[in-house]
Amino acid sequence: MKDAGTIGTIHGVGLGPGAMDLMSVRADRLVRGARQVAYFRKAGRFGHARRTAEGMLRPDVVEIPMEYPVTTEIPFSHPEYNACLSAFYARCTEQLVAAAGNGEDVVVLCEGDPFFYGSFMHLHSRLAGRTPVEVVPGITGMAGAWNATGLPITWGDDVLTVAMATLPEEELVRRIRDTDALVVMKIGRNLPKLRRAVAAAGREDGAWLVEHAAMPGQSVTRLADAQSVTPYFAILLIHGQGRRP
Amino acid sequence: MKDAGTIGTIHGVGLGPGAMDLMSVRADRLVRGARQVAYFRKAGRFGHARRTAEGMLRPDVVEIPMEYPVTTEIPFSHPEYNACLSAFYARCTEQLVAAAGNGEDVVVLCEGDPFFYGSFMHLHSRLAGRTPVEVVPGITGMAGAWNATGLPITWGDDVLTVAMATLPEEELVRRIRDTDALVVMKIGRNLPKLRRAVAAAGREDGAWLVEHAAMPGQSVTRLADAQSVTPYFAILLIHGQGRRP
Ligand SMILES: C[S@@+](CC[C@H](N)C(=O)[O-])C[C@H]1O[C@@H](n2cnc3c(N)ncnc32)[C@H](O)[C@@H]1O
Ligand SMILES: C[S@@+](CC[C@H](N)C(=O)[O-])C[C@H]1O[C@@H](n2cnc3c(N)ncnc32)[C@H](O)[C@@H]1O
Repeated sequence: MKDAGTIGTIHGVGLGPGAMDLMSVRADRLVRGARQVAYFRKAGRFGHARRTAEGMLRPDVVEIPMEYPVTTEIPFSHPEYNACLSAFYARCTEQLVAAAGNGEDVVVLCEGDPFFYGSFMHLHSRLAGRTPVEVVPGITGMAGAWNATGLPITWGDDVLTVAMATLPEEELVRRIRDTDALVVMKIGRNLPKLRRAVAAAGREDGAWLVEHAAMPGQSVTRLADAQSVTPYFAILLIHGQGRRP
Repeated sequence: MKDAGTIGTIHGVGLGPGAMDLMSVRADRLVRGARQVAYFRKAGRFGHARRTAEGMLRPDVVEIPMEYPVTTEIPFSHPEYNACLSAFYARCTEQLVAAAGNGEDVVVLCEGDPFFYGSFMHLHSRLAGRTPVEVVPGITGMAGAWNATGLPITWGDDVLTVAMATLPEEELVRRIRDTDALVVMKIGRNLPKLRRAVAAAGREDGAWLVEHAAMPGQSVTRLADAQSVTPYFAILLIHGQGRRP
């Protein structure tokens, strides 16, 4: 990859839902060959995407962890929250541009698919025009989740709605009522609200909570039986019931 | 894999959007190692999923093409259409059970992800209890499509709606109005209806048609400029514009 004088490429590489062998062949090659890898993580944590790549990296790899600023003090809706994240992404972008400046590629490890509610896109939009950027799609967390239930998510002409549990309760109710199949992500502290919304929409019977899809400790629970939920890797599913000859 | 007296496993293997190296490592191993592969195709055609696996199969592989019955004479809404497909899936199931009966696994090649609007699920539900069945998730065609546009499909709290172009025009209009991000599949002869629906929803400006995503001949066109569309591998996208710090 090294070519003195030229600038390296930044690869945003989708790692899939978690199992190492659910990475694409293209991702697998890039991760194993990388001399520089970057990834997001919470301060003091190992990093979700980094964990998926554990055991695959070159012994001489240079790691570039990008640690989210602690935003728990700032309410989500406050403009300062956005400003703080924006400054963080700008700093990460400078770090990656500097790393690519030595002529060596950088592989950014991304959960699932980088362009599907991923953090990499905040770098992608800032890197445009500064370094070459390539994106490798991945199997999404939700595909890992419906696979874990052993049932198809959609049939025939089903409509699938993907929504975040951070939406207002009434909007969740309306969306859940008005769809055949449903995926809800970013659950965490929104579980009680989400349960109320699913119940209000009259769809508790078909609702499943999948935690750690395609990872060690994977679990599938009826939403009605869920007392609590893992803070990060959880997805709610309602399977479509469309035409099935 | 051979173990006389036991019954083989049927693997429904997601091949991803089309590029061979976008298959998962798990899928790649199964496809290369398979002694028996099965796949759907139209009568007289090579088969879409079979094409993706071209060059990967063992020289001594046994191929089991499953040819869709010609249904063009029967209107889609006619009960006979469903009965005809149902009988077809039942026959395919018997073929696979017989093939697994020799103790050897069968790899069923599936486009994208098998549990996402795939045909494999019609076999999956019929195979239950008759042979062991395993499913390998894959990168969906839509992930290949948004990757082809070089832009994220969803940000922040965006709602994503996935709908089929076979839905009635008024329902398409309503769905397109009421979502942040949109994916429409199964376009083909429904292109004129879909264009009218996108225009009626006032969203023509952001609508893209992606044909043959992650395949030779991949193309990305503004919907407004599309005169025609390839019959099968086409997806309409409208990207979400959600919160981006
Ligand atoms: C910031 S989004 C990233 C989505 C990712 N880019 C993808 O394609 O799946 C994070 C959310 O993804 C979901 N998620 C991703 N992978 C998952 C997995 N393996 N099991 C359960 N949930 C997962 C969770 O709902 C989590 O809150
Ligand atoms: C029966 S569905 C199968 C979907 C598949 N299981 C998946 O996960 O993408 C067929 C539709 O998928 C879409 N499709 C699948 N792969 C595609 C690709 N590589 N490029 C464009 N469209 C694709 C087209 O809209 C097509 O009409």
